[in-house]
Amino acid sequence: MKQKPTLPRGTRDYTPAMMLRRNYIISHIKEVFEKFGFLPLETPAMENLSVLMGKYGEEGDQLLYKILNQGDFLKNVQPEDLKKGSKLFALQIAEKGLRYDLTVPFARFVVMNQHDLAFPFKRYQIQPVWRGDAPQKGRYREFYQCDADVVGTNSLICEAEIILMMNEVLGKRLGIQGFEIKINHRKILAGIAEKIGAEGKENELCVAIDKLDKIGKEKVEQELLQRGFSENNIQALQPIFDVPANNEAKIQFLEDFLQNSAVGSEGIADLKQIFEYLQLFDSQTSFPVVVDITLARGLSYYTGAIFEVKVKNSAVGSISGGGRYDNLTGTFGLQGMAGVGFSFGLDRIYDVLEEQNLFPAQTQSTTQMLFTNFDKESEKFVLPLLKKLRDAGYKAEIYPQSTKLDKQFKYADKKQIPFVLVAGSEEMKNNEISVKNMQTGEQKRIKIENLQTFFQEQL
Amino acid sequence: MKQKPTLPRGTRDYTPAMMLRRNYIISHIKEVFEKFGFLPLETPAMENLSVLMGKYGEEGDQLLYKILNQGDFLKNVQPEDLKKGSKLFALQIAEKGLRYDLTVPFARFVVMNQHDLAFPFKRYQIQPVWRGDAPQKGRYREFYQCDADVVGTNSLICEAEIILMMNEVLGKRLGIQGFEIKINHRKILAGIAEKIGAEGKENELCVAIDKLDKIGKEKVEQELLQRGFSENNIQALQPIFDVPANNEAKIQFLEDFLQNSAVGSEGIADLKQIFEYLQLFDSQTSFPVVVDITLARGLSYYTGAIFEVKVKNSAVGSISGGGRYDNLTGTFGLQGMAGVGFSFGLDRIYDVLEEQNLFPAQTQSTTQMLFTNFDKESEKFVLPLLKKLRDAGYKAEIYPQSTKLDKQFKYADKKQIPFVLVAGSEEMKNNEISVKNMQTGEQKRIKIENLQTFFQEQL
Repeated sequence: MKQKPTLPRGTRDYTPAMMLRRNYIISHIKEVFEKFGFLPLETPAMENLSVLMGKYGEEGDQLLYKILNQGDFLKNVQPEDLKKGSKLFALQIAEKGLRYDLTVPFARFVVMNQHDLAFPFKRYQIQPVWRGDAPQKGRYREFYQCDADVVGTNSLICEAEIILMMNEVLGKRLGIQGFEIKINHRKILAGIAEKIGAEGKENELCVAIDKLDKIGKEKVEQELLQRGFSENNIQALQPIFDVPANNEAKIQFLEDFLQNSAVGSEGIADLKQIFEYLQLFDSQTSFPVVVDITLARGLSYYTGAIFEVKVKNSAVGSISGGGRYDNLTGTFGLQGMAGVGFSFGLDRIYDVLEEQNLFPAQTQSTTQMLFTNFDKESEKFVLPLLKKLRDAGYKAEIYPQSTKLDKQFKYADKKQIPFVLVAGSEEMKNNEISVKNMQTGEQKRIKIENLQTFFQEQL
Repeated sequence: MKQKPTLPRGTRDYTPAMMLRRNYIISHIKEVFEKFGFLPLETPAMENLSVLMGKYGEEGDQLLYKILNQGDFLKNVQPEDLKKGSKLFALQIAEKGLRYDLTVPFARFVVMNQHDLAFPFKRYQIQPVWRGDAPQKGRYREFYQCDADVVGTNSLICEAEIILMMNEVLGKRLGIQGFEIKINHRKILAGIAEKIGAEGKENELCVAIDKLDKIGKEKVEQELLQRGFSENNIQALQPIFDVPANNEAKIQFLEDFLQNSAVGSEGIADLKQIFEYLQLFDSQTSFPVVVDITLARGLSYYTGAIFEVKVKNSAVGSISGGGRYDNLTGTFGLQGMAGVGFSFGLDRIYDVLEEQNLFPAQTQSTTQMLFTNFDKESEKFVLPLLKKLRDAGYKAEIYPQSTKLDKQFKYADKKQIPFVLVAGSEEMKNNEISVKNMQTGEQKRIKIENLQTFFQEQL
């Protein structure tokens, strides 16, 4: 007996029902990216390991999928090479790997095409990435990222536009309730580190403060001690745990707290400028932006404003995030390429839309009407009608062979097709067709010359 | 010095300019697939090698990209295992591979989901595939396929609909001139083999006849001799080389030639039925369909009608093709799953559209207007306008920082943005903005309250 085929662990098929919903989300994301002047880019799934290795830390290097060289990859391998161990041996027989994110390939693209691009270069990229992480609920080894970046500018208009795009996609278009756009600034964190007498240790401070939401103040303090912060440092940090909630008050508080820190004051000035741009763009809307000094974001290459979007009272993690970086392409020898980028978490947005029941009904099905199939005679009657409806722009199909009607209705039901059309001998004699509304169960005889008008009213 | 990053041989980035054109083609293909009731499906890039191996012949097995197992893949490897050679050793350290086409993953999906699907199951799938072929002009190691298949039915309506879809995408929508939809039937080829006394040898006959266009009659005859056909076989084959050109005459000729062949007559009956369906769907259109008995298509799993689309007088190869199969999923233990499928060759269609200069101008750029950036004062004036235009549905951007105007105009030029808007102190004083049409060079002062109306007329 043949073995039943399987999928690799941590991967999945996107069924038509899932695809329709994913495409619904993606089409809104794309439209908004393009409305803001971002252009599409796609890079190959395979990158040279020399491009990928060393960019994601040691753990990342291990999680990279490596692709065996084609042909006789053992040609220059000696038995003693096996003693190097899997990590090093892998590099002897694999030159390529699957992309791990969209940022490194984007940086590679910018460096390779720096003389042809119009800077500031604004691109978006929606493609899968692969990570050999242990699979768990909601975590896959292949998943999509939806990134937008602008490189070659320091303008804070870009940060304001990121907030506008997040708000338009998540709020105005997808209708998500209760989401918050958290914003912070790496220089504010640096300023705080300076102010508490732990200058230069903002990375360690970040890692600990980042967990405030999850583990609470006490454990954060314990972790800070373990990370080498002194009791004095932690004492000086106390006001930060009681920062005011309101954005304006918070910025005022920070401005005072950081007044002697040059770097901290820069961070504050940036935040104020971003809010001013937002106000200029749109003074009518109250954006759900929250200054959150516990927001640190893990990625070490951020140097300016950082963002993260979460939905209140949701089990789903952050659904969007990003930040500004000084030096995207330095690792490839091109210095000073500053920019800011963010991404939407497609799978998590999907989960939130399900949670809040926000997928519109039409993402259930694309086919709008099914012609049933009685026999050759009815085919003759029906095929020209089918063509007419398609020409009028409807998504329509005929059950391809004549079989029991209930089987054909089941097909329509399973595919969630809203209308089923039946042409029996009675109908054909009268130049009519019976149309059944699958949702209401209502059935009507329609003159074929009125069929288009009927669907114009119904759909 | 850092090394300049590179791309793996045989792969490429799709730049924004290419992406816009590719998306133009893909959106038409998708719309037509969905209009005919096909639903989207996506499968993971990685498949188990047990699913992929043995499906594409020995050469295919070699061209598959194999992915190194995660973790300590050498754990159970002994030095003597290296003696197995690369081919066998690969299977010891790699369990997964990249998909080689969309058909095998589709068959795997159908088998794994057979109890949940609505049959006949109609899916389309537009995704990249990977093959370790030697790269050459126009041949890449990563390329896209756009497949549509319907499985679970023998109805020839499906074949007629394939012709309708090919004609709508390539002709009506993309406007390609001089394309021909070649059609043949595997049973006609079987009938011919039988008729010339070489029953059961239609595969060898196919392989040779397939080359008639390329190498001519004499060399085909030589090849047939080499493949074990007798002089008598070849003598009996002669009428086939002089088959009439006109479809109807050709079908009549074949009907006569194959009248004693049961299988050949079945093939003829199918072709006639397909043409009848086409006529029923649309008696007004003269479809560019050509019965071509030299068409064989390489894939051995085809058992019924086969299709191929070529453009006359074009350097580009076939741009679409497909056929009917009896048994898609037999290799995975599910028997009798008949269907028919076809695909569009995205890269080749792209080349034909370039050859015939058919890409519309708007696929050059998505951004429709650029606001220049003078200084903070002009930003204040311009940002609310930018928001208004975006709200009205326009794709608009602002040059994010104030810099020399000619640099900003160069940016617009490079990005092929059709309109550039300038708000200097004069304009601002009068509540106006200068709009430059980048194509005509024409410049106009517009009252800001008239800006939307202006673009409504222009775009």
